[in-house]
Amino acid sequence: MIQMGTVHGVGLGPGAQDLLSVRADRLVRGARHLAYFRKAGRPGQARRIVEGMLREDVVEYAMEYPVTTEIPFADPRYNASLSRFYASATEHLVGLARAGEDVVVLCEGDPFFYGSFMHIYTRLAGSVPVGVVPGITGMSGAWTACGAPMTWGDDVLTILTATLPEEELTRRIRDTDALVVMKIGRNLAKLRRAVLAAGRESEAWLVEHAAMAEQRVTPLGEAEGVTPYFSILLIHGQGRRP
Amino acid sequence: MIQMGTVHGVGLGPGAQDLLSVRADRLVRGARHLAYFRKAGRPGQARRIVEGMLREDVVEYAMEYPVTTEIPFADPRYNASLSRFYASATEHLVGLARAGEDVVVLCEGDPFFYGSFMHIYTRLAGSVPVGVVPGITGMSGAWTACGAPMTWGDDVLTILTATLPEEELTRRIRDTDALVVMKIGRNLAKLRRAVLAAGRESEAWLVEHAAMAEQRVTPLGEAEGVTPYFSILLIHGQGRRP
Ligand SMILES: C[S@@+](CC[C@H](N)C(=O)[O-])C[C@H]1O[C@@H](n2cnc3c(N)ncnc32)[C@H](O)[C@@H]1O
Ligand SMILES: C[S@@+](CC[C@H](N)C(=O)[O-])C[C@H]1O[C@@H](n2cnc3c(N)ncnc32)[C@H](O)[C@@H]1O
Repeated sequence: MIQMGTVHGVGLGPGAQDLLSVRADRLVRGARHLAYFRKAGRPGQARRIVEGMLREDVVEYAMEYPVTTEIPFADPRYNASLSRFYASATEHLVGLARAGEDVVVLCEGDPFFYGSFMHIYTRLAGSVPVGVVPGITGMSGAWTACGAPMTWGDDVLTILTATLPEEELTRRIRDTDALVVMKIGRNLAKLRRAVLAAGRESEAWLVEHAAMAEQRVTPLGEAEGVTPYFSILLIHGQGRRP
Repeated sequence: MIQMGTVHGVGLGPGAQDLLSVRADRLVRGARHLAYFRKAGRPGQARRIVEGMLREDVVEYAMEYPVTTEIPFADPRYNASLSRFYASATEHLVGLARAGEDVVVLCEGDPFFYGSFMHIYTRLAGSVPVGVVPGITGMSGAWTACGAPMTWGDDVLTILTATLPEEELTRRIRDTDALVVMKIGRNLAKLRRAVLAAGRESEAWLVEHAAMAEQRVTPLGEAEGVTPYFSILLIHGQGRRP
């Protein structure tokens, strides 16, 4: 009988190659089978991070999202299509592991923090050995880029996604010390109105491509109408400090 | 004229040595001057993580907290004493940097996330070159230890410290999808009452020493009365997923 391989969900951190953990670095460099998500027709950010680190004989498996903007979010076909996609990607990885192969699945930031790998992880449950390597989150990259400490003393930190309804964003932004908002993209205008309504625009920073070559930090008040996929909004805590 | 050295605040991650980033690993192994915080008479967790990685000729500077429990928190002398301590530690590091020496300051987890280094960082501002290396947070170590994804879709994640008043804990624990509570220590009984009052005890996990040899994951309902300094309480988000 063949010994089963392991599926490793490996956090790559926010973008710079030397912000991989030593454990992640070893797994990526040693990987014979490498899988990663990407939008169809794009190189994919996770794959971009590990460029130049791979074995010559690496076998790559690009998992291309079937839908992005063609079907509206609320349409049940959106979920059905994604669900089939995750199921078939999982099946492929299980096939490799059953054949005795280890597979490294690349994850931006930390795998368990709003990550796509989680959809595979829950589907793998119990079928084959799985390992998860935590990573530096995109938000850690973002607050480091700002050059200002994020949370002090007993500061409350709220983490939101800009996909929430505007009133809920406003209410929660008003009611926190420190703030992180993820998944901004085309929700920037709504998010900005919410921050303004909460009376906190002057405290807010927009960080694009944290820890990547194109890193950019802008006061929210000076932000333009569009922001790339890799953008995070931050408000720093001002808590108790001696 | 001597070229000034740099003070590096280096995130070590949650505890395992191979969870340092590649950048942190290089800085720690190459450091001639190494500084770290610890309680008087203790080895210090940050120093423990890097055991066996240091240069033979490393010069260590242990920054020992002057107060822990002798003076009550609310006493102004508590703040005054800590403030003097941070000022004098900063002065020492500035002296080294002015003499042309680089210094690595060890930080548990991520330096800008409730970290002691922040008190030095703000005091250094402008005087000497400073670098900050983000790290994997203790909470990432904790949710990886639980083996369950933390946030899905548009889950709200609230991060609290158990030092907050009980009613505030209760209110915020009721009003979030996913939850992280840091700095538990002797606040465990209060925190447990708050989780119970919020109706969420069955969802809560206590993670002690995440990513360290003594790692332990316990359902909150089965937790004992005391918990070590390195403990985090988690409630996982259950958000939208295809
Ligand atoms: C699907 S989530 C994945 C988060 C990732 N697992 C993490 O730990 O950061 C994608 C969102 O993460 C944020 N993000 C991740 N890395 C980033 C970076 N380097 N710079 C800016 N934003 C980033 C953006 O808000 C983006 O919309
Ligand atoms: C002063 S804060 C420092 C946090 C650190 N900078 C980070 O990024 O996680 C100390 C608190 O962090 C949490 N913590 C940090 N590392 C941990 C670990 N490995 N396991 C459990 N808790 C940890 C505990 O709640 C502890 O009381």
